[in-house]
Amino acid sequence: MNRMKCLYLIAFAICASVLGFNCAVAGELADEDGSRLWLRGDKYNGAEVLFRGSMTPSIEIALSELRGGWRGGPVRLELKKGGGKESFRIFSDKNGIKITSAGDAGLLYGAYHLLRMQNTGADMSNIDVSEMPAFDLRILNHWDNPDGSIERGYAGHSLWRWDELPGVVAPRYREYARANASVGINGAVLNNVNASPTILTKDNLVKVKAIADELRPYGVKTYISVNFASPMVVGCLPTADPLDKGVGRWWKDKVDEIYGLIPDFGGFLVKANSEGQPGPCDYGRTHAEGANMLAAALARHGGIVMWRAFVYSASDSDRAKQASLEFQPLDGEFAPNVIVQIKNGPIDFQPREPYSPLFTSLEHTPTMVEMQLTQEYLGFSNHLAYLAPLWKEFFDFVPPSSLKGIAGVANTGDDVNWCGHHFGQSNWYAFGRMAWDPGLTSGEVAEEWLKQTFCSDSAFVTPVKGMMLDSREAVVDYMMPLGLHHIFAWGHHYGPEPWCEVPGARHDWLPSYYHRADKQGIGFDRSVTGSNAVSQYPDSLCRLYGDVSTCPEEYLLWFHHVPWGHKMRSGRTLWDELCHRYDHGVSEARRFQCVWDMAEPYVDSRRFRDVQSKLRIQSRDAVWWKDACLQYFATFSGMPISYGIERPVHDLDDMMKFKLDITNEECPESGFNK
Amino acid sequence: MNRMKCLYLIAFAICASVLGFNCAVAGELADEDGSRLWLRGDKYNGAEVLFRGSMTPSIEIALSELRGGWRGGPVRLELKKGGGKESFRIFSDKNGIKITSAGDAGLLYGAYHLLRMQNTGADMSNIDVSEMPAFDLRILNHWDNPDGSIERGYAGHSLWRWDELPGVVAPRYREYARANASVGINGAVLNNVNASPTILTKDNLVKVKAIADELRPYGVKTYISVNFASPMVVGCLPTADPLDKGVGRWWKDKVDEIYGLIPDFGGFLVKANSEGQPGPCDYGRTHAEGANMLAAALARHGGIVMWRAFVYSASDSDRAKQASLEFQPLDGEFAPNVIVQIKNGPIDFQPREPYSPLFTSLEHTPTMVEMQLTQEYLGFSNHLAYLAPLWKEFFDFVPPSSLKGIAGVANTGDDVNWCGHHFGQSNWYAFGRMAWDPGLTSGEVAEEWLKQTFCSDSAFVTPVKGMMLDSREAVVDYMMPLGLHHIFAWGHHYGPEPWCEVPGARHDWLPSYYHRADKQGIGFDRSVTGSNAVSQYPDSLCRLYGDVSTCPEEYLLWFHHVPWGHKMRSGRTLWDELCHRYDHGVSEARRFQCVWDMAEPYVDSRRFRDVQSKLRIQSRDAVWWKDACLQYFATFSGMPISYGIERPVHDLDDMMKFKLDITNEECPESGFNK
Repeated sequence: MNRMKCLYLIAFAICASVLGFNCAVAGELADEDGSRLWLRGDKYNGAEVLFRGSMTPSIEIALSELRGGWRGGPVRLELKKGGGKESFRIFSDKNGIKITSAGDAGLLYGAYHLLRMQNTGADMSNIDVSEMPAFDLRILNHWDNPDGSIERGYAGHSLWRWDELPGVVAPRYREYARANASVGINGAVLNNVNASPTILTKDNLVKVKAIADELRPYGVKTYISVNFASPMVVGCLPTADPLDKGVGRWWKDKVDEIYGLIPDFGGFLVKANSEGQPGPCDYGRTHAEGANMLAAALARHGGIVMWRAFVYSASDSDRAKQASLEFQPLDGEFAPNVIVQIKNGPIDFQPREPYSPLFTSLEHTPTMVEMQLTQEYLGFSNHLAYLAPLWKEFFDFVPPSSLKGIAGVANTGDDVNWCGHHFGQSNWYAFGRMAWDPGLTSGEVAEEWLKQTFCSDSAFVTPVKGMMLDSREAVVDYMMPLGLHHIFAWGHHYGPEPWCEVPGARHDWLPSYYHRADKQGIGFDRSVTGSNAVSQYPDSLCRLYGDVSTCPEEYLLWFHHVPWGHKMRSGRTLWDELCHRYDHGVSEARRFQCVWDMAEPYVDSRRFRDVQSKLRIQSRDAVWWKDACLQYFATFSGMPISYGIERPVHDLDDMMKFKLDITNEECPESGFNK
Repeated sequence: MNRMKCLYLIAFAICASVLGFNCAVAGELADEDGSRLWLRGDKYNGAEVLFRGSMTPSIEIALSELRGGWRGGPVRLELKKGGGKESFRIFSDKNGIKITSAGDAGLLYGAYHLLRMQNTGADMSNIDVSEMPAFDLRILNHWDNPDGSIERGYAGHSLWRWDELPGVVAPRYREYARANASVGINGAVLNNVNASPTILTKDNLVKVKAIADELRPYGVKTYISVNFASPMVVGCLPTADPLDKGVGRWWKDKVDEIYGLIPDFGGFLVKANSEGQPGPCDYGRTHAEGANMLAAALARHGGIVMWRAFVYSASDSDRAKQASLEFQPLDGEFAPNVIVQIKNGPIDFQPREPYSPLFTSLEHTPTMVEMQLTQEYLGFSNHLAYLAPLWKEFFDFVPPSSLKGIAGVANTGDDVNWCGHHFGQSNWYAFGRMAWDPGLTSGEVAEEWLKQTFCSDSAFVTPVKGMMLDSREAVVDYMMPLGLHHIFAWGHHYGPEPWCEVPGARHDWLPSYYHRADKQGIGFDRSVTGSNAVSQYPDSLCRLYGDVSTCPEEYLLWFHHVPWGHKMRSGRTLWDELCHRYDHGVSEARRFQCVWDMAEPYVDSRRFRDVQSKLRIQSRDAVWWKDACLQYFATFSGMPISYGIERPVHDLDDMMKFKLDITNEECPESGFNK
């Protein structure tokens, strides 16, 4: 199969080479380090770009970008009443092209849009485009710590150099803001949701202000994560009880202090009573009471609270139900400027999850979805996994119109190429583009990104886009197909440890809690006869998911404990199907290598080799995953690994002994096998 | 291809399981450690076995073996004049079965032969078999050092426990002798050809005698390797000049001393003036003069000198020509009890070499061939490589009748299973069987060995035999196809280092000396316009090999420097053919895994897992070889690795930096990738 696809690609490449290509001739491309992201347009400086009216920093940027990058006729920018301040229209009249918006941010977005059209080869004749963002809140969440480390960050250290700030303001802050603006991201939470209370000290707020000043001209609002116990740690109060008047006053004063420094400050992101973080429940108060207290302090300034629903007490038998159990009863009790921020799935950023049922059950509470760009569970910055298809899959169930906003846990760091993996940039790009317009297809966004980042020749774009579109499903297949989830290694979430046992550990932090493999079968019974998590979904889905005969196979082992001999739609038994899925994942990873190797003439040598090297790691890791999971599960199924697939090359005993020497803040240099 | 073959095997296995099998039912086989080799016949003790005449220790063994293992009717042994003392006849008459021979060794070999026939399911009705060995000398060469290490030994330490001897005589010496006798090996050189002179001290000769006493009843003669400088080191003489009278006298006295201890001592094996060893050339004498001096000392006792032709001075431009250049002029000058021992190929035990031209050019000198059982260049004891096909290939060019004997560099050590890899035992077995009867096919010998070592069910034997028969060619393909040779790592010969450069090293110890890759092509030009090594072969072969258009492709790069674009018989270019050969080697290694995994029901769990684990290492190593060689050679060919094959998973830079932390006396536990 793998080889057949490669042969197809070869035929494709031969055709392409006959047709010639427009952007690269082998040997002529200068090395690039990836630092320019998708903003590689040559400086041009010949464009006639006009604006009449009162200048703002954002409009100045819009003019400068167009003057530097636009290669067409005259462009006029115009502020015009009506419509959202971020929306814009681009159209051509007899004098050239005109961009109009009710706000300077809209003009800026319009400028980037025009340049994108040009750089992706869009039809520019009789242009008339009107764009408005689908979500008001399009925010990156940085899990960056004060010491410069990034939780689940795999692209080096934090972009924010707290030790230098506010004295030294690194040029990268503006480059970061520019990249965000170019794809429509309008907010950044600077620090980790596992928040250090010290972010609220005066010294640190001055640093936050310095960053905010850099982001503002690009339309990017600054937010911070706060620790609910801050009044005690920073304010020396005896309690953080949200109903305590002193606590409320402390927060009000602190918020006032922040707005004194940052007049357009966005608000707070809060992880409370989750994984050991303090919160209102410590005082017998509800999440709503905690959130509303903060919301009151922020409301006077127009700030918001993004209150995370990522909670799971050890009390219930099914972690997947916890968020709903805790938040559903609070529906309607949150203040208007509180938005409950919910991870896309009920567990935790797995390669595939069904959507979190909270999205459909909270009817009187503003919600936003939290996606993950950093590939905590998808191979870190070693594996190519284009995530737009995952997000699109989510939107198939949760319509964007039902959400107030979208948050993405950032995959950026101080690596030269920002994201560790050059293709990691595509997730940053796609997040912004989809947050603006979730109606875009994954393929459209991939194509935009590829053309701007590498080369617009279709002989390059078509196969590489195909690889991107298939990449997330490949990861699912070689890591945890058919609804398997969270069988990752303890300590890091890079490799497989379905066998993991840690004495005294919370049961729901162990893979066996999720895969439940035994002699009979595998999977987590969440049907009505099991944990009944299915009941949290609307009736139609509850019935669909709850019945093993109708449950989509991609969720099968998420919702059911299924006998090894269960007949799958392919005609194979569950065990054989599992074998073939893992094997298919490996084949896909190898096919991606073939696709990329054939792209060599279209890519500069440095980035070509960087990506090639990562794809090799990915292929090796895929084999490791397959060998580990299949051999481990075979100890339960008692069946040989299907002889039709490639045999394991690693011994289970060796793999169980092997510990990858990494923390959750590093990407292992060579993956497994070294 | 790989998968298609697996599918074929699956069909085969299904058929086999329908038919049932005779020797194993899954789950019922007791674990075995491999220590019993192919001698696993159940103790029976019911057989009626008779011998009349004067008893000898060898006949006692023959009787005991038959009484313990024979499950048929009465067997009579009889000494009978006529024929060789090792030959025998087995036939049935009205009183049962009779074994006759002119010597007790012949009766012993006959007993083992009868048991082998029984245990391999031969037709025993109207049995009438006459056997005589093809070679008088069927000798194992142990490269064991006095400190217990074994040069190029990958199965633990030496069998000989010099520190315990002569006081403690380990039972393993007899087990070793028994295994040899069972396949007809009749000699053992106990110590390394890089010989310590100390083997000739009185203390050590007493130890040699103790071992010789254990081997003798099994018909195994004892030999030792001697250091040509022994008279100086052990005898304190001022010279070792073979024409010096004192030197001659010293050797004569020493030989007399040996025969005083070991009356049937076999003789000496000598590595002289080779790789730094002392020899007659140090004194301006020829190899013949050196050998003849030793031969004179031994002749009176019936001893022989095996004088190795493995020499290569740094003087000529082609190492492959050296042995012939040095020995050809001496043809006819050696004493009658000197045998020149020549490695099968002109370089050094490569996975494939043409035969050494000395075999056809020495017309007046007795010669013997030195084969290698220990897999110095074939994956140590990690890779499955059944070597009978290599030896058969040699006999296609050098008829056994032209040789006085055959030596095999042993692959034994003190590992429980003797050879490290269970399938390594097959090479020990096959060496003995082929030394007795080189007319046996590789398949016949493999089948004999499999039936005795594992299981005689054809559902097991047929596919596993197929794997064995294909295994050496697979190693050639993934290591050095098309006549490539000696591109091994410096220091050990396990992995690839075609790039190896060691400052100041002898040029002919470096891979680049052998592969000669450059922008134009690859291979060593040994044609008449090159080193002219072809001229050392008989005219017909000289013409065949010397012309790039007629040279067999398996020797192509041995004899020619061939342009990358050269059209091969497959229609591919040389470069593409090289890619496909390496890839095919990897596919074969993976296919072997599939064959073996399907053999699980027929093999005890311990040995099954041992072999399975080794095959996994082999597959990983095969990928390492392919990735290293193709990527390195691609730097010369300037062409991409053929897109039709699986892409590399390792980066050349990483591989070039990687050093496998082993010496030439260890087998790396996990191969590469760990």
